[in-house]
Amino acid sequence: MTGADRLAVPDLAAIREAAARIAPHVHRTPVLTCASIDAEVGASLRFKCENFQRIGAFKARGASNAVYSLPEALARRGVLTHSSGNHGAALAYAAQRRGIAAWIVMPSNSAKVKIENVRRLGATIRYSGPDAASRAAVCAEVERETGATMIHPFDNAAVIAGQGTAVLELLADAPELDAVVAPCGGGGLLSGTSIAARGLSPSIRIWGAEPANADDASRSFRSGHVEPLPAKTTIADGLRTPLAERTLAAIRANADALETCSEEAIVRAMRMMFERMKIVVEPSGAVPLACLLERRYPAAGLRIGVIVSGGNVDLDRLPWQDGG
Amino acid sequence: MTGADRLAVPDLAAIREAAARIAPHVHRTPVLTCASIDAEVGASLRFKCENFQRIGAFKARGASNAVYSLPEALARRGVLTHSSGNHGAALAYAAQRRGIAAWIVMPSNSAKVKIENVRRLGATIRYSGPDAASRAAVCAEVERETGATMIHPFDNAAVIAGQGTAVLELLADAPELDAVVAPCGGGGLLSGTSIAARGLSPSIRIWGAEPANADDASRSFRSGHVEPLPAKTTIADGLRTPLAERTLAAIRANADALETCSEEAIVRAMRMMFERMKIVVEPSGAVPLACLLERRYPAAGLRIGVIVSGGNVDLDRLPWQDGG
Repeated sequence: MTGADRLAVPDLAAIREAAARIAPHVHRTPVLTCASIDAEVGASLRFKCENFQRIGAFKARGASNAVYSLPEALARRGVLTHSSGNHGAALAYAAQRRGIAAWIVMPSNSAKVKIENVRRLGATIRYSGPDAASRAAVCAEVERETGATMIHPFDNAAVIAGQGTAVLELLADAPELDAVVAPCGGGGLLSGTSIAARGLSPSIRIWGAEPANADDASRSFRSGHVEPLPAKTTIADGLRTPLAERTLAAIRANADALETCSEEAIVRAMRMMFERMKIVVEPSGAVPLACLLERRYPAAGLRIGVIVSGGNVDLDRLPWQDGG
Repeated sequence: MTGADRLAVPDLAAIREAAARIAPHVHRTPVLTCASIDAEVGASLRFKCENFQRIGAFKARGASNAVYSLPEALARRGVLTHSSGNHGAALAYAAQRRGIAAWIVMPSNSAKVKIENVRRLGATIRYSGPDAASRAAVCAEVERETGATMIHPFDNAAVIAGQGTAVLELLADAPELDAVVAPCGGGGLLSGTSIAARGLSPSIRIWGAEPANADDASRSFRSGHVEPLPAKTTIADGLRTPLAERTLAAIRANADALETCSEEAIVRAMRMMFERMKIVVEPSGAVPLACLLERRYPAAGLRIGVIVSGGNVDLDRLPWQDGG
């Protein structure tokens, strides 16, 4: 891979093409409002509900764009990724829909429900050890055996373009927005969001949100280098991923701030969304509201789009409930 | 009250007037779909999400129509109802919005969260004993003292007209529907739904749904008389209410069937809506899907509108969770 390839990101035109490409395969999700949360935050929020998206998360967008961008000859050999989470399910979904094979590499200690979820979508699971080296080795093995195309969860221009389509829809439905906030793990969603939003508006404020216990992205945003994850846990485990150079570059070029929130605020925001908005969100999907509740941005009085990234959560035990 | 008044119900024109009257005060709620639930049911479902309605339930519609229908001189003396549930909160909401007083009569053993909820909406709470006689006595006392207008939770033509506005919106957004299903407690929602849907389409199938453990409405539908509640409990406690003669007459004149479901199916339907649709619903709001899952209607292959009545549920303990 050349240096230029390694940092290539889509532009607004590519994100618009992605939107047209994936339209038959993803939901146009609704935008919800909640007067009582607006009162708590002191701003007018527009929630883009990607928890209602196919497979329960925005990841269906990026995976669908990557899968449907493949030329037929490549597509016939299938696709491959490593992810025990939403991207794995999303790639399985998109591959099944196009009628091609998908291999998903997952740590052998993955939760049963996640394994079943991917299997139900017709993908073949290959188990790795829990570390990145073992994961990479198993991926290389599958690539060699099958010729499948690797679709990285976020370090991939087609995936980033797909993730950017959510904010295109949001700004079409709510064109008056002063700012948008998206959660940041590996940075695919925030990259796509910031390229699309900045492309549409030179003045819109673009904010990233992550847990303080996984504050690598906000440190990277300041330092300009991909910083490692801190050795801490967070309830928003979907955001426990370092950036890639590609996503860091896109975010630094377009976003205005990347801030963090406490674990307590994540649980509070999540419960608030269940209780007042009547929507099921996963902890990562509550992180932008958690940052707003903790007053991490100059948000007062603004009209703010909030990307609710997903709703895949263990309903047998919600984080505010005592251990049963 | 004369016999004719006692049975008066709105017609389609009155429901359309109600829709115009309440439009500034209620949400136009979205209609959601879920491919995997369609596969379980063997039909194409369109879920009208009244759990996203103001105060978390369709009751905001009926209460708003009743409050905003009052002439100014009457309105100035306030409104009154007995309800520890969604109608009490809805009447408090509508009264606060119009800037008039509301008195809500609740049993003194009501859950604290319900009391707080109504109080936060600016209403005055008056406590009664748990029985109907004590409730009626306290209501009569408040009426005498204040001159407030009693707004019955369902035995009221303006309330029924308001409840009927949900299906008007549903049929505007999904005009191809073959059938609609609504839950039935006192019958306000099912009356309004069936008058509006029948008024718009002579051929649409209109189905009511209730728990088998509160099967008074389906027995009344067959016998033609208001039958009493069975001495059983149901998780869908919002539907543990007998019909009024008014609602029974409207339902018998317009609906095609009124069926029941098991408690197990209610929990299963509710969890399915949380897990797959990512929406928070109360047990009563899951009863129509529960009837569909138990194959109580000739639904196979049809396009069916499902009214999801509300989302006010205790999030500290969901019904599929073990006691903690």
